[in-house]
Amino acid sequence: MTRIDGRAANELRNVTIERGWSDQAEGSALISFGRTKVLCTASFTNGVPRWLNGKGKGWVTAEYSMLPRSTNDRMDRESVKGKIGGRTHEISRLIGRSLRAVIDTKALGENTIVIDCDVLQADGGTRTAAITGAYVALADAIEWGRSKGFIGKNAKPIIDSVAAVSVGIIDGEPLLDLAYTEDVRAETDMNVVVTGRGLFVEVQGTAEGAPFDRRELDALLDLALGGAVDLTALQVATLAP
Amino acid sequence: MTRIDGRAANELRNVTIERGWSDQAEGSALISFGRTKVLCTASFTNGVPRWLNGKGKGWVTAEYSMLPRSTNDRMDRESVKGKIGGRTHEISRLIGRSLRAVIDTKALGENTIVIDCDVLQADGGTRTAAITGAYVALADAIEWGRSKGFIGKNAKPIIDSVAAVSVGIIDGEPLLDLAYTEDVRAETDMNVVVTGRGLFVEVQGTAEGAPFDRRELDALLDLALGGAVDLTALQVATLAP
Amino acid sequence: MTRIDGRAANELRNVTIERGWSDQAEGSALISFGRTKVLCTASFTNGVPRWLNGKGKGWVTAEYSMLPRSTNDRMDRESVKGKIGGRTHEISRLIGRSLRAVIDTKALGENTIVIDCDVLQADGGTRTAAITGAYVALADAIEWGRSKGFIGKNAKPIIDSVAAVSVGIIDGEPLLDLAYTEDVRAETDMNVVVTGRGLFVEVQGTAEGAPFDRRELDALLDLALGGAVDLTALQVATLAP
Amino acid sequence: MTRIDGRAANELRNVTIERGWSDQAEGSALISFGRTKVLCTASFTNGVPRWLNGKGKGWVTAEYSMLPRSTNDRMDRESVKGKIGGRTHEISRLIGRSLRAVIDTKALGENTIVIDCDVLQADGGTRTAAITGAYVALADAIEWGRSKGFIGKNAKPIIDSVAAVSVGIIDGEPLLDLAYTEDVRAETDMNVVVTGRGLFVEVQGTAEGAPFDRRELDALLDLALGGAVDLTALQVATLAP
Amino acid sequence: MTRIDGRAANELRNVTIERGWSDQAEGSALISFGRTKVLCTASFTNGVPRWLNGKGKGWVTAEYSMLPRSTNDRMDRESVKGKIGGRTHEISRLIGRSLRAVIDTKALGENTIVIDCDVLQADGGTRTAAITGAYVALADAIEWGRSKGFIGKNAKPIIDSVAAVSVGIIDGEPLLDLAYTEDVRAETDMNVVVTGRGLFVEVQGTAEGAPFDRRELDALLDLALGGAVDLTALQVATLAP
Amino acid sequence: MTRIDGRAANELRNVTIERGWSDQAEGSALISFGRTKVLCTASFTNGVPRWLNGKGKGWVTAEYSMLPRSTNDRMDRESVKGKIGGRTHEISRLIGRSLRAVIDTKALGENTIVIDCDVLQADGGTRTAAITGAYVALADAIEWGRSKGFIGKNAKPIIDSVAAVSVGIIDGEPLLDLAYTEDVRAETDMNVVVTGRGLFVEVQGTAEGAPFDRRELDALLDLALGGAVDLTALQVATLAP
Repeated sequence: MTRIDGRAANELRNVTIERGWSDQAEGSALISFGRTKVLCTASFTNGVPRWLNGKGKGWVTAEYSMLPRSTNDRMDRESVKGKIGGRTHEISRLIGRSLRAVIDTKALGENTIVIDCDVLQADGGTRTAAITGAYVALADAIEWGRSKGFIGKNAKPIIDSVAAVSVGIIDGEPLLDLAYTEDVRAETDMNVVVTGRGLFVEVQGTAEGAPFDRRELDALLDLALGGAVDLTALQVATLAP
Repeated sequence: MTRIDGRAANELRNVTIERGWSDQAEGSALISFGRTKVLCTASFTNGVPRWLNGKGKGWVTAEYSMLPRSTNDRMDRESVKGKIGGRTHEISRLIGRSLRAVIDTKALGENTIVIDCDVLQADGGTRTAAITGAYVALADAIEWGRSKGFIGKNAKPIIDSVAAVSVGIIDGEPLLDLAYTEDVRAETDMNVVVTGRGLFVEVQGTAEGAPFDRRELDALLDLALGGAVDLTALQVATLAP
Repeated sequence: MTRIDGRAANELRNVTIERGWSDQAEGSALISFGRTKVLCTASFTNGVPRWLNGKGKGWVTAEYSMLPRSTNDRMDRESVKGKIGGRTHEISRLIGRSLRAVIDTKALGENTIVIDCDVLQADGGTRTAAITGAYVALADAIEWGRSKGFIGKNAKPIIDSVAAVSVGIIDGEPLLDLAYTEDVRAETDMNVVVTGRGLFVEVQGTAEGAPFDRRELDALLDLALGGAVDLTALQVATLAP
Repeated sequence: MTRIDGRAANELRNVTIERGWSDQAEGSALISFGRTKVLCTASFTNGVPRWLNGKGKGWVTAEYSMLPRSTNDRMDRESVKGKIGGRTHEISRLIGRSLRAVIDTKALGENTIVIDCDVLQADGGTRTAAITGAYVALADAIEWGRSKGFIGKNAKPIIDSVAAVSVGIIDGEPLLDLAYTEDVRAETDMNVVVTGRGLFVEVQGTAEGAPFDRRELDALLDLALGGAVDLTALQVATLAP
Repeated sequence: MTRIDGRAANELRNVTIERGWSDQAEGSALISFGRTKVLCTASFTNGVPRWLNGKGKGWVTAEYSMLPRSTNDRMDRESVKGKIGGRTHEISRLIGRSLRAVIDTKALGENTIVIDCDVLQADGGTRTAAITGAYVALADAIEWGRSKGFIGKNAKPIIDSVAAVSVGIIDGEPLLDLAYTEDVRAETDMNVVVTGRGLFVEVQGTAEGAPFDRRELDALLDLALGGAVDLTALQVATLAP
Repeated sequence: MTRIDGRAANELRNVTIERGWSDQAEGSALISFGRTKVLCTASFTNGVPRWLNGKGKGWVTAEYSMLPRSTNDRMDRESVKGKIGGRTHEISRLIGRSLRAVIDTKALGENTIVIDCDVLQADGGTRTAAITGAYVALADAIEWGRSKGFIGKNAKPIIDSVAAVSVGIIDGEPLLDLAYTEDVRAETDMNVVVTGRGLFVEVQGTAEGAPFDRRELDALLDLALGGAVDLTALQVATLAP
């Protein structure tokens, strides 16, 4: 099968990360997976939410949102509708869990980092792009906190890096990093979150069309782990001093 | 490791399904996984939502909710808070997708089935119990629709059965069907939705503590497939005439 | 006139109370009036809402809700609609007032009891069933609080018992405990809340069809007082050690 | 017992009705019960809500609200809180039911009348004042509809008039038309809605302090019926051509 | 051009202010601009919102609302819709800013005054009537606070008076104080808030039809300043002891 | 007085417009006023809202929003709060009115254009930047509609161009295009919307500190008209083929 943009089955789209995009946030990254563009900002606050007070731990959380015309058809704003939809909730929670999986909240100290992932343009894979970019913003916010003395000089709040990628099966063939036109045709769709050391943080596979068997699942996981290696390398290069 | 209730690692809790619990709904089941009790009702309506009009297809959707005192500590009602939380949204969507994966909406015809899964008592595994019980309610609602002439005599809207079970890793050991006290200790937590033929519909694995490797993932999938066989057998027995 | 289920005009439906239904709540009762089933749980918390702080008094409140398919036609969830309807508010307030009428909040001490009445199946008289069952749950929660030392050994927070029943006029005849099919035909509908000693806590009579006169009102009150005697006896028997 | 304003136990406060207060509404009345002032407007629309389409019947409904500083302490606006409280819902529903009890919706034809009762100043008895004033506004709106030809010349949509009054027991003594300072002291509080012919539309008695017995209930009903006679006379005089 | 009510181009409608309309509020005024009637109340509270704590300053804020049938066609209540519209927000903010412009919050001390402007009947110019009436209510609330000792005897929280008026261009002619039927025809519509000393607090001009030029803007400002002189005189007379 | 960035009193910040930023929208522009960056997209739909059906006219509307970390301190999302704040409403309405002032909706035909202005980074003047950028997005969306045949070949829906700029008085000196640090110090703050022909669409002046006199108002309007000439020239250059 030939992919619409001529990529190999195990090839990522062109991925770029513009570190420090924002003049305001303590950490930020504008990440692109092909035409998908997500602005990730990390807001550092000294102190924790009330329910964590006095436990000597920090907190990392995330919110995801799409601009109304990030998509091909304009969507109504969730602020106008007065409520957040299930998909948005689900993705915000996924990003938060993924980042917390590589954070030692004790080493972070009583500090809070809120990650905002706003999709400026969507062409498939927005949640995995968000996680991959959010890690860069988070890392910079932590260094900012260290530079201000909120985090100890030798504290290591970051245990590992984290990146994410989507994989799917189209016409029986497993493919890495689906663009939107591929995503809508996929029989099975899987988002995989992987640490820099190659361990799984999240595996979320869904049969959109036909249910899938163990062999297909294995092929998708192989593809995802391969893609994660490349994304990790890009994160490392981006964060290099 | 000995489990709190003396079960083997690959043993389900006592699972029972009370088919036809409701005098009102077209299909219903009160399912118990140990102390977890979920009331599943299926409401059959002739006709479809406007966006499906005239496409010759039916629709199946689901809503999940917990009674405020189904849990050990009382939770505020989402109706009182005026909004539905992310977890509720996520689970409602999961149940809906899982059921639709085994339904041929063309064969269903222009009919709508709404599944309500209300947790009366919660002790871990409520979403997987909900899916397993919802299938029974759904099957009965479809037969009701057939008996009323809304579904053709020879139409086969049900392609396969579907059941779900949770698995997790505690102290390095993979365990089937976690009770609440186990769930909170699990390093990794996975919900697996499987068809009667043994194919995956959903695989949702989350590293709550440490990230997991490929070998652990495989062990969890093995356990889940085994548990699903037992649940499928119970569904078949329950639905036997 | 013959009633649909053959009852006499002054006869209750079959009423049962399953005390201690819940493994989680401090007090609970699953009450049935014929096909009407309401799960009542009482959640005991040491301490009071902020506005009662330091007054040496406790607080009892209630919330009522119907499962979406407790009724013949499925209703939308109030959590999904994002707001609670007037009828729900009205009944929640009625249950709370009825219970507080038999509680000495000083003797209760600075403790809070929240009663949840969730209608699992509705066939008329859900609010009166809720009050009658809620009293049993409340009584058990208070004994739980005493056993934990939150309520003094000799304190008597319960002044009297409380039960409720509906009455109505159909085709000019006063009837006790209306089932749903009777309720929709009633010209006048009245809910009466009565203490174990036979005093009124609430009298809520509404002319659904034609306005009613003093003689009809008197007949309805007579019926209600009679039914309340039976309900009180059942409560006493249920709570017997 | 001497009442704060020197009234006899069976004496209404000074009640006035300013018919046609509004230049905009099809019917309106500014009613005062002592310092309590409620502006009632009736908005007439040709046509009915969708659920009544084609049934040849009209619809009458009501909304009640209090201005934020109608009371001694300022209350937050329900529009600012983003939801309507239980008390507001309860009273709006009561007013609507009370008015519909004296309307023949078939004779009204497919027309809708919305009654708005806005409390400009509150000193007890706002719901009963609202009902009493709303009837005047409603009657005028119906005549407006007749004058425009929306209601037939000989149609009689108004079956009877309707008025309401509060009664209560203070220090054991039954009193008519409680002012706010009396209302907060009442052991029992009852709102009674009565037609011009002296029949009951609603009887809502609540034990705020101690439960009440049959004799007390009877005394309160006597007082209410007496007060209703005076209110009916005032309505008749107000509506006289 | 002849105006519908025969006024000259630079003539206000009949403006009246009924000071102290409310028995409950610390300050109040019922203001009429022709058929436009706005009830303004000022609620004085000792203390400030949390974010102002300990700064030695007071706070003045305002809320604007329209009764549903204040207008020619009934509008839905914002409390029923569950949210406040943009226009309401805009006007509430305008009134608050206008009043704060003439208040020395240090001299006010740590006290809060909330102004409620509720439109009882609307015929154009409701926001400007609200500001003009609100000033009177505010002034009286401040004197109430002084009489209770919350404001120092010699403190001067009021720096200047403030009034507002609308102006607009119809058929090329600048007109003062537009009634509703004029307002809908206006090409340009301007609301001008002016202090007693003749300085501008707000100038809000909008081209409803054609954009306007500098000369037209100047003519409108001249008209507005003239009208403000008359309104200031009326405020002074109303507040005279 | 020297401005923080060395600008002259009548000098704009560096303004750039990146036309066609979005691959998805029918028209788009990323506009920067110094560090302020606003993404404007125009979504073209054939057809109009129901209330405009069959009138042969089109509709242009706008929504404004800020990313949570566009500002120096992170703000809560309005979607999370469940309601839109007054400031957001106010600005959305201002943008919509400003654009409609230069559109001939009859020439637009029965088409709808929704403009979304999302502030990616905020440093003062976001609403005026939004209007200026929105005009470019709108112009491109209209050409898109023409190219698709939704707008007639010779139809001229655009009557004039429109741009906006803020002006203010700091320490008595009138300044053009305030940056955030200037804005917070301004005594008077004015937003002026001007067409390409130099006519006013909106003039919104607010005394943040001291009220302002006629001479100051004139000086601000002069500055604004000068700035608008430069912005118009940039729009023309940007839209040149």
